Amino acid sequence: MKTSEDLPLHQRLGAEFQRRIESGEWPEGEPVPSESQLCAEFGTSRGPVRQALAMLRSAGSLVGGRGKPPVARRTTPSQPFDTFLSFTQWARSIGREPGQHTLEVARRRASPEAAVRLGLAQDEPVVELVRLRLLDGVPAMLERSTFVHEVGRILFDFDPDTGSVYQELLRREVDLHHARHTIDAVAAGPRDAELLRVDAGAPLLRVRRLTTSRLGVPLEDADDRYLPAMATFTIENTIEGRTVIGRYRTEED
Amino acid sequence: MKTSEDLPLHQRLGAEFQRRIESGEWPEGEPVPSESQLCAEFGTSRGPVRQALAMLRSAGSLVGGRGKPPVARRTTPSQPFDTFLSFTQWARSIGREPGQHTLEVARRRASPEAAVRLGLAQDEPVVELVRLRLLDGVPAMLERSTFVHEVGRILFDFDPDTGSVYQELLRREVDLHHARHTIDAVAAGPRDAELLRVDAGAPLLRVRRLTTSRLGVPLEDADDRYLPAMATFTIENTIEGRTVIGRYRTEED
Repeated sequence: MKTSEDLPLHQRLGAEFQRRIESGEWPEGEPVPSESQLCAEFGTSRGPVRQALAMLRSAGSLVGGRGKPPVARRTTPSQPFDTFLSFTQWARSIGREPGQHTLEVARRRASPEAAVRLGLAQDEPVVELVRLRLLDGVPAMLERSTFVHEVGRILFDFDPDTGSVYQELLRREVDLHHARHTIDAVAAGPRDAELLRVDAGAPLLRVRRLTTSRLGVPLEDADDRYLPAMATFTIENTIEGRTVIGRYRTEED
Repeated sequence: MKTSEDLPLHQRLGAEFQRRIESGEWPEGEPVPSESQLCAEFGTSRGPVRQALAMLRSAGSLVGGRGKPPVARRTTPSQPFDTFLSFTQWARSIGREPGQHTLEVARRRASPEAAVRLGLAQDEPVVELVRLRLLDGVPAMLERSTFVHEVGRILFDFDPDTGSVYQELLRREVDLHHARHTIDAVAAGPRDAELLRVDAGAPLLRVRRLTTSRLGVPLEDADDRYLPAMATFTIENTIEGRTVIGRYRTEED
């Protein structure tokens, strides 16, 4: 295989830039040096510097740009549990304004499917929450959550239009401990289409989530449907077994 | 919040069954005790035992069944790097027969998009591989990979119809070290539709992958499109920060 001396200049520059971002030498969230500064530092022409920056951008280590200098992003840290669970905290972590329109908070009897997933008898009450979630005021995701009654009843004392349900549940000491997210694709149904402003049948990224307590008792069963143009999920892993997960705003280019 | 003594019987049984699976007391891949045996052991009627087993099934800790006793699956271990990367190893890990029809192996000049992602100049040669991947003989995924030439040229000495390209590349000491998987949903294009036997526009689960060397040099840029009925990706995380990833055959029920 290649050794680093055999590599073309732009790849060696790319590896060096990557190392600087991961080490924090180029701090996360700060603009990286300009092309001219990098050309001067490495005594090279603009071509290889531009190619190296493009590599980092495509690897997700540089974000922003378009006239402004690109900003470093460490790809190392996994999104923490609450940022991964909470749309509100996630949106803030990526510098976007979260928003929501609550369409329904309802106490009703568990559907047969929800009863099975939540380990309830079919006549037990649950609380269903349906919200349209926004990023910078634009519809991004349709959230349908079913909470066991003991947890869901907290929502009747809380205005789900004001922000994060999870933050409120954690504040109320609900034991949200473990979440299993199952990711697939689904065709938009009529209601998805109307609320997310796409054609019926359009592909949506679906994340079903079972949130359980420390003891493994189901507390919430959710179905979140994202516009693929608005959010993507990432899994990074290495041969040494390091695993990093993330949810990102889909790149606008 | 609830303490374990407050919990309904089926939830306490479910937590105990879960503990036995995670601890290996009920070994992974082995059938769990029958409902009658569990009723006898816990001195309870069939209802709560059934509900507890249904909970575990919905959490992914029990698989199979339908007449046969369900089999335990530990949800703890993350799929290792090579199982997550390789369709062949993944299929074998879930007890399915992998298959592939190679549609194309071609050396050509990098497209502008692939060149950017792979950090290549636009006139550099790459090797493109297109394969239809099968599970138990049924189309499951359409794989389009672009390898940098140095890696891709190995494929001309290897028959990609015979199995795992990644295993071959690792055997040839290619430094596949890190993979970034970006997951979203996409509408099937005409070729996707024809090969995967769905209508054009049908939702597909798309996983784009950038595979890099230890130094962060891109080696492969891939676009895998799965039928959602055939595979799902899972991310499990806990409040303590443990993260587990998996790819599973979509449950048939």
